[in-house]
Amino acid sequence: MHVNGKLFRTIWFDPTDGRVKIIDQTRLPHFFDVHALDTLEDACYAIRHMQVRGAPLIGAAAAFGLYLALKQGSEAKTAANALLATRPTAVNLQWALNRVLRAVDGHADPVAKALDEAMQICDEDVAHCTAIGQHGVTLIQALAEAGRQPVNILTHCNAGWLATVDRGTALAPIYEAWEVGIEVHVWVDETRPRNQGASLTAWELDREGIPHTVISDNAGGHLMQSGQVDLCLVGSDRTTFRGNVCNKIGTYLKALAAHDNGVPFYAAVPLSSIDWDSDEVPIEERDAGEITHIQGLNAQGQLDTVRLTPASSRAINHAFDVTPARLVTGLITEKGIFPATEAGLSALAEVIKDQV
Amino acid sequence: MHVNGKLFRTIWFDPTDGRVKIIDQTRLPHFFDVHALDTLEDACYAIRHMQVRGAPLIGAAAAFGLYLALKQGSEAKTAANALLATRPTAVNLQWALNRVLRAVDGHADPVAKALDEAMQICDEDVAHCTAIGQHGVTLIQALAEAGRQPVNILTHCNAGWLATVDRGTALAPIYEAWEVGIEVHVWVDETRPRNQGASLTAWELDREGIPHTVISDNAGGHLMQSGQVDLCLVGSDRTTFRGNVCNKIGTYLKALAAHDNGVPFYAAVPLSSIDWDSDEVPIEERDAGEITHIQGLNAQGQLDTVRLTPASSRAINHAFDVTPARLVTGLITEKGIFPATEAGLSALAEVIKDQV
Repeated sequence: MHVNGKLFRTIWFDPTDGRVKIIDQTRLPHFFDVHALDTLEDACYAIRHMQVRGAPLIGAAAAFGLYLALKQGSEAKTAANALLATRPTAVNLQWALNRVLRAVDGHADPVAKALDEAMQICDEDVAHCTAIGQHGVTLIQALAEAGRQPVNILTHCNAGWLATVDRGTALAPIYEAWEVGIEVHVWVDETRPRNQGASLTAWELDREGIPHTVISDNAGGHLMQSGQVDLCLVGSDRTTFRGNVCNKIGTYLKALAAHDNGVPFYAAVPLSSIDWDSDEVPIEERDAGEITHIQGLNAQGQLDTVRLTPASSRAINHAFDVTPARLVTGLITEKGIFPATEAGLSALAEVIKDQV
Repeated sequence: MHVNGKLFRTIWFDPTDGRVKIIDQTRLPHFFDVHALDTLEDACYAIRHMQVRGAPLIGAAAAFGLYLALKQGSEAKTAANALLATRPTAVNLQWALNRVLRAVDGHADPVAKALDEAMQICDEDVAHCTAIGQHGVTLIQALAEAGRQPVNILTHCNAGWLATVDRGTALAPIYEAWEVGIEVHVWVDETRPRNQGASLTAWELDREGIPHTVISDNAGGHLMQSGQVDLCLVGSDRTTFRGNVCNKIGTYLKALAAHDNGVPFYAAVPLSSIDWDSDEVPIEERDAGEITHIQGLNAQGQLDTVRLTPASSRAINHAFDVTPARLVTGLITEKGIFPATEAGLSALAEVIKDQV
């Protein structure tokens, strides 16, 4: 998407200097910085410290990380394990690493092959997100035709282009709608503790000129009760074969409110984030400092961190929750929209099988 | 309750200098400052800017504000209207002002009478909160006897002693339990945007040595899904005669999660916060700056405010939501625990009538 008139992806191989580049998302929305990743350690740091985040982008970053490791002469499996340990919840991490490992296995030039595979993962991610947008926009179109103008869409966390290589998952249908002239307005959950909504989703939508309003995570229920939300669109870090959606902590609460108020609730789910084998989801527990402290821009125009809680109060920081399939209206995938049920996912599996 | 070994209320008339004193809650948990209110304007400022907040304390502060106005020679009804305009949602404000207006009407010494009435409102509030604690502790006791040790209680916002004159509403049963030796642990919702949980509830519990953990507002659903919450206890800014509970924004989302997971959900409701006449609740919309910016303690040990959102992103800040009676297990009042139904509130009305 565009930043200051120039097209960017969130991660890319820069042929001019042969380095892997990322947008450092820990500095947004206040500063737009591009960093290079030169080593396996750089890649692990970037994923763990959320310079890059979002399930699809984590997958792409891990693939590039494995390329960097091989370039350093590291052993592939050991490097993959180090990358896998950075974030436990997103299934894309495992998926991307397996794909690069398979590609380089027995290959004459594993370094070149790993780079090629990482770039291919990126291109495919963009294509998948674009397809998710094209399928998802039909939901927005239908609401607009039913008289909801603007169509008010609530989203949680950031599942926009910054969470993917480009275009986004949950935000892709919104970009699509905007580009074809459908009037939309987005309620942006700030998404504590890391505020990916307030800092990343708001920044993305602002860059594209899409009307949006930042709200506290507490507000969505009231907005739905008062008829101000037509549709909820969220991403997913891992969707199980039963249709349970693991996404950023707090997603479950919005799904409950949507269900209680008859608001359709859809998750945008690239196939790479589906766990076809298990219904178990490990929930990442992150540093409590993300609760007790917060970063923002001070009056001097510098990033600063302030403490919110009493110094002796304990905090705990679960990063994800699981929304039961019964609360999910449907799953928007690159292959179409499917019911969030075991039968729906079986039907999706059939579609993929037929196309392979 | 105790602060550094000394007993404090949140508001009091200081006989040593004849001034009304408050704890400035906008400086907690980082600094403990006592301010004097000398004029009607001081009282309006303190309520509007939330140096004092919480439905019962707002009522007490308004009563003192009316005393200060009369002392200044202001007209009683005009002063009452100025105080009433400070915060629209809490019904206690109207209740306390009406009570002082009635007391001074035709009285020979309206200034002395207003002060007397304000102090009486304070004493009664403490007695009511103590009674709420004694009724509510039976719920905690029963859970402990059923083997929940500690009893894990989730609370939202601050309905502790800082929200009242002393003792609290939702936290009163917890203080009671702690004092009789029942093992408890409190999940403290941080309660964006003003973080009354992270700054006030955590500070209160920390002063009393009660085990607690601060969590993001997004986390309660996951904790309930995973069996880590035995009871939800919240306050109420206005409870309607039908049993609908208006409380801090986000309360509704926790009530939905409690209902979905079979966790009992109680609101602590002093009689002064019940609206016996209407089911309509005006929802206060506060400054969007409370969403876009946040205050905390910087590395230099000073209070500082940082910006969280992109400069050009809009925000909106609804301060309350309404939890439908069907999601509320019961109402804990100073007269006992009643069902959150029209019949339950009628039964409560009968009890009050019989005692008058």
